Amino acid sequence: MQVIRNIREVQARADAERAAGRRLALVPTMGALHAGHLSLVDAARERADRVWVSIFVNPTQFDDPADLEAYPRTWESDLEACRKAGVDVVFAPLASEMYPEGADTVVEVLELSKPLCGAARPGHFRGVTTIVAKLLLATKPHLAVFGQKDFQQLAVIRRMVRDLNLDVEIVGAPTVREADGLALSSRNLRLDAEARRQALVLSRALDAAEGAVSAGERDGERLLSLVREEIARAPRARIDYAELRDPDTLARAPDRLGAATLLALAVFLDPASPGAPPGGAVRLIDNRVLQPSD
Amino acid sequence: MQVIRNIREVQARADAERAAGRRLALVPTMGALHAGHLSLVDAARERADRVWVSIFVNPTQFDDPADLEAYPRTWESDLEACRKAGVDVVFAPLASEMYPEGADTVVEVLELSKPLCGAARPGHFRGVTTIVAKLLLATKPHLAVFGQKDFQQLAVIRRMVRDLNLDVEIVGAPTVREADGLALSSRNLRLDAEARRQALVLSRALDAAEGAVSAGERDGERLLSLVREEIARAPRARIDYAELRDPDTLARAPDRLGAATLLALAVFLDPASPGAPPGGAVRLIDNRVLQPSD
Repeated sequence: MQVIRNIREVQARADAERAAGRRLALVPTMGALHAGHLSLVDAARERADRVWVSIFVNPTQFDDPADLEAYPRTWESDLEACRKAGVDVVFAPLASEMYPEGADTVVEVLELSKPLCGAARPGHFRGVTTIVAKLLLATKPHLAVFGQKDFQQLAVIRRMVRDLNLDVEIVGAPTVREADGLALSSRNLRLDAEARRQALVLSRALDAAEGAVSAGERDGERLLSLVREEIARAPRARIDYAELRDPDTLARAPDRLGAATLLALAVFLDPASPGAPPGGAVRLIDNRVLQPSD
Repeated sequence: MQVIRNIREVQARADAERAAGRRLALVPTMGALHAGHLSLVDAARERADRVWVSIFVNPTQFDDPADLEAYPRTWESDLEACRKAGVDVVFAPLASEMYPEGADTVVEVLELSKPLCGAARPGHFRGVTTIVAKLLLATKPHLAVFGQKDFQQLAVIRRMVRDLNLDVEIVGAPTVREADGLALSSRNLRLDAEARRQALVLSRALDAAEGAVSAGERDGERLLSLVREEIARAPRARIDYAELRDPDTLARAPDRLGAATLLALAVFLDPASPGAPPGGAVRLIDNRVLQPSD
């Protein structure tokens, strides 16, 4: 496994692999790798001859400096995990390589970036689409794999890739969960034991909504009430948003659900003491596509 | 010569040319081809095995709908000129191909797009960088050639390509002029005979400034006064801007010129009658890099 830090070098390596007729897959990450990332690596390997992982904690997608500061960095174990998973290249540029002096260009998906996490985290998706465009153009993969846990991110990236004519296939891979249902996230590392326990309300709320839809519930507001009740059971959980949206356009779902509908959740888990430092609350997201027609 | 209208088709053609080891050059145009464009084709041919020209009047870079409406369309003679010039492929997509339903992504170079034409034409460079990114990613050239007449456009595109890690060499080609000095522009087609005559004040003003610098003048304000006097000789010419800027950063030049300095001009040529319809005034640009150290 080779670690490459330089854009020119990774482009030359991509050109050589392509010239040799090999199919390249990229798994873009911010490190702090867990089994969810490794499932993306597996999905990549099924579809390509070479699997590359990028590790870059992108400063421009953090709306909150404290959140950037607190984001977990686990470089040595990340490398070890990539080695074990049979990754061929880790692309790990410095910030000064991705944002050199005078860096002045942004890529933005205007409408799809507005609701949900875009409303809660101003500038977040502009940072995401800008860095993903830079990473895809640096590594020149045939395909790139993203997790469905970040549903809106995946939708925004698909739209960007289509709109810009980027000749890269975007693959969405299913969310990986702990045995008790918690969606894997690098941010889970920041939960204390009690917050970890209470974080289960996200998947439980999704289960409750899904169960209600299976039982015939079609009223959006009643489904959201169920979700809010479930989350209210956890005293340290605070809803950032809980919304029903069209899975393709992210437009608000109609009052009565007819077609497949995204239920998207963002919830803060507060630290034990109210006087905890900034960055103490951990924001988790999860989602489910409800299928009222099933 | 092949005319391709479809993105998938042009990408497949690019892949085949690249697989065969051929070097591709793109000359992006909005049609209404003149000898200036053909000089870009020549510059492309010197550097590549295949020369492709794109012809697309990009709606998103026109801040004024009347200007878009009035922009010259000369499709048949454009094709003929490309054929004669030995162009291999003309990529001429429909607007619905470049901006399909739900198109939502913009590429923007924030600071470099602000002054000069960016200040005079809000949103113009965002339209330019968005369409140039889409065209480069559709046609996958090794290099692309742009004219130095559009100095800021060239600077903005170079910055975008660098920032996004687009693996395309950007070549700037010298401005081509009529025998009397007028810079070639598709917009010259819209000048009546008297406006055409008066349009000479642009190149004369640049000559006057250059002459003054050669004679030792270093004071920026006095150079701009010279420029304004020269343009005032043409009663139908109205200055949009006349500015001295750093050629790399486009920051304002210091009061006394020390290093190479961009003198950038935008001038409206008014139609004969004051009651002429909107789009009647023709906006021309020209520039010169002054070399006080020579």
